Amino acid sequence: MENMLYLGIDGGGSKCRAVIASLEGEIVGRGVGGPANPLHGFQKTLDSILDASLKALEDASLTSAIYSKLIAGVGLAGVNLPGLYKQMTEWQHPFAKMYLTTDLDIANIGAHDGSEGAVIIVGTGSCGFVNSSGHKSIFGGHGFPIGDKASGAWMGLEAIKHTLLALDGFSEQSSLATKVSEYFAVDNALALSEKMAGRSSRQYAKLAKIVFDCADENDPSALAIVNQGIDYITKMANRLLRDNPQRLCMIGGLTDFILPRLSPELAAHFVKPIEQPEIGALHYAEQCWKSVHKQSA
Amino acid sequence: MENMLYLGIDGGGSKCRAVIASLEGEIVGRGVGGPANPLHGFQKTLDSILDASLKALEDASLTSAIYSKLIAGVGLAGVNLPGLYKQMTEWQHPFAKMYLTTDLDIANIGAHDGSEGAVIIVGTGSCGFVNSSGHKSIFGGHGFPIGDKASGAWMGLEAIKHTLLALDGFSEQSSLATKVSEYFAVDNALALSEKMAGRSSRQYAKLAKIVFDCADENDPSALAIVNQGIDYITKMANRLLRDNPQRLCMIGGLTDFILPRLSPELAAHFVKPIEQPEIGALHYAEQCWKSVHKQSA
Repeated sequence: MENMLYLGIDGGGSKCRAVIASLEGEIVGRGVGGPANPLHGFQKTLDSILDASLKALEDASLTSAIYSKLIAGVGLAGVNLPGLYKQMTEWQHPFAKMYLTTDLDIANIGAHDGSEGAVIIVGTGSCGFVNSSGHKSIFGGHGFPIGDKASGAWMGLEAIKHTLLALDGFSEQSSLATKVSEYFAVDNALALSEKMAGRSSRQYAKLAKIVFDCADENDPSALAIVNQGIDYITKMANRLLRDNPQRLCMIGGLTDFILPRLSPELAAHFVKPIEQPEIGALHYAEQCWKSVHKQSA
Repeated sequence: MENMLYLGIDGGGSKCRAVIASLEGEIVGRGVGGPANPLHGFQKTLDSILDASLKALEDASLTSAIYSKLIAGVGLAGVNLPGLYKQMTEWQHPFAKMYLTTDLDIANIGAHDGSEGAVIIVGTGSCGFVNSSGHKSIFGGHGFPIGDKASGAWMGLEAIKHTLLALDGFSEQSSLATKVSEYFAVDNALALSEKMAGRSSRQYAKLAKIVFDCADENDPSALAIVNQGIDYITKMANRLLRDNPQRLCMIGGLTDFILPRLSPELAAHFVKPIEQPEIGALHYAEQCWKSVHKQSA
């Protein structure tokens, strides 16, 4: 165990974050690499993990020769799928050890600084995760366009659907439809549908702010969308609370839009996240390593 | 004009139908080629049109030498988009003349045997089209997943969304959720979302029958989906009727499921389609040719 270091990896759809810490927990380096969502590119994910790790090593004035001294905790989307988990664990990685878990697990560990708890993540997508008494459960997170209610992409999709109906004269005009049409500089449904062809969930998610803005101005169509989202998050939070998590956090880009709209009773259950997911990955590496070390001692 | 023939082309996402007729209207040959939706493959569309035409010529005991004697009426999806219309008209086709219009226009002309009128198409997608006093309008048809309410793909998407929520415990259990889960042989939301990843609108549309079956058994979740669809088709029909079309037809794979669910007053406006879209394309070629011929006479 001499000169060993912990490596925390938070893989994500747009970037991969790496952080290196001493066994005593002192952070010595950080690095950022490219996209690392194995559902959207397996080899790219491996490359991004190595790239981010190398940058973190460089930041710590170390070289890739240290790879073999790293105890890695890696959080990635999709590794709750058995096939992807197996594929990832078969990777001939250069680290001393790699402990693999989901992006949700490390986000949860980070949010609660190593303790158990629950998180609701609401950004481009949406998802709930709870770890209580060692039992982990995931809810939602089924992706665009079939799931992830209340997420930015879902809000954008609902806004587009409403706007197309309004432009065709099949639903009432609204400030939401007007603002979405202005955003895309279109004045008819055909032009809007053409603009949306092949757009990613991330591009739909950019419309979420318009939906919240219109809801703040009491536009009925926007309020209907927001209220559906809030209803879903309320169900999600109540479901997570049934497992009696020690703490409950909301994280992700829509947190500040959604938390204030929950009922005060429900909002009171939420506390602020303590650390970022990559720190959660560090904790995960440490927890797994110590657990094995204890067993073999 | 000696030995000239009319060629009708109905391009579609799964196949291209060609039919050849004499100037007197006698059908002499038919052929079927591959997919011909220029939105999903431009060169493939041209190939399929030529292939279907050649097969129709062979069926009429003619050869490709006759290409230059053909007055073609071609109906294709997407050519209401200016860019695609231009691209198609710039095609160095081998025909004497090519008159290009939308798949909706030829479906409408066919349904009314050359007369003006309106159609609602409800199959994998959904769309409304009206041609009245020479004025043509399209409603809906904005594609999956943003539009095409009441279509098979829309019904399937709503069924999947409901089933995922039910499997996660966020909406009531239902026979719809049970049957969709059985169809995909899954018992949890993660497995279902995995099965749906990357599925086409056509594959979603296969679930429409399950939705209608469950609605027939008064499953509230299925009824809610079907009623939303019927509400949309009702709005669509009322919009088309505002233009006072001479006739109104419903065509497409869901016709027999939807027509009986409309109000009797509305259903009374619908008449049976007379001919198929490829015959509409023939009529279109004839109308365009005669119109030009008259002008130049």
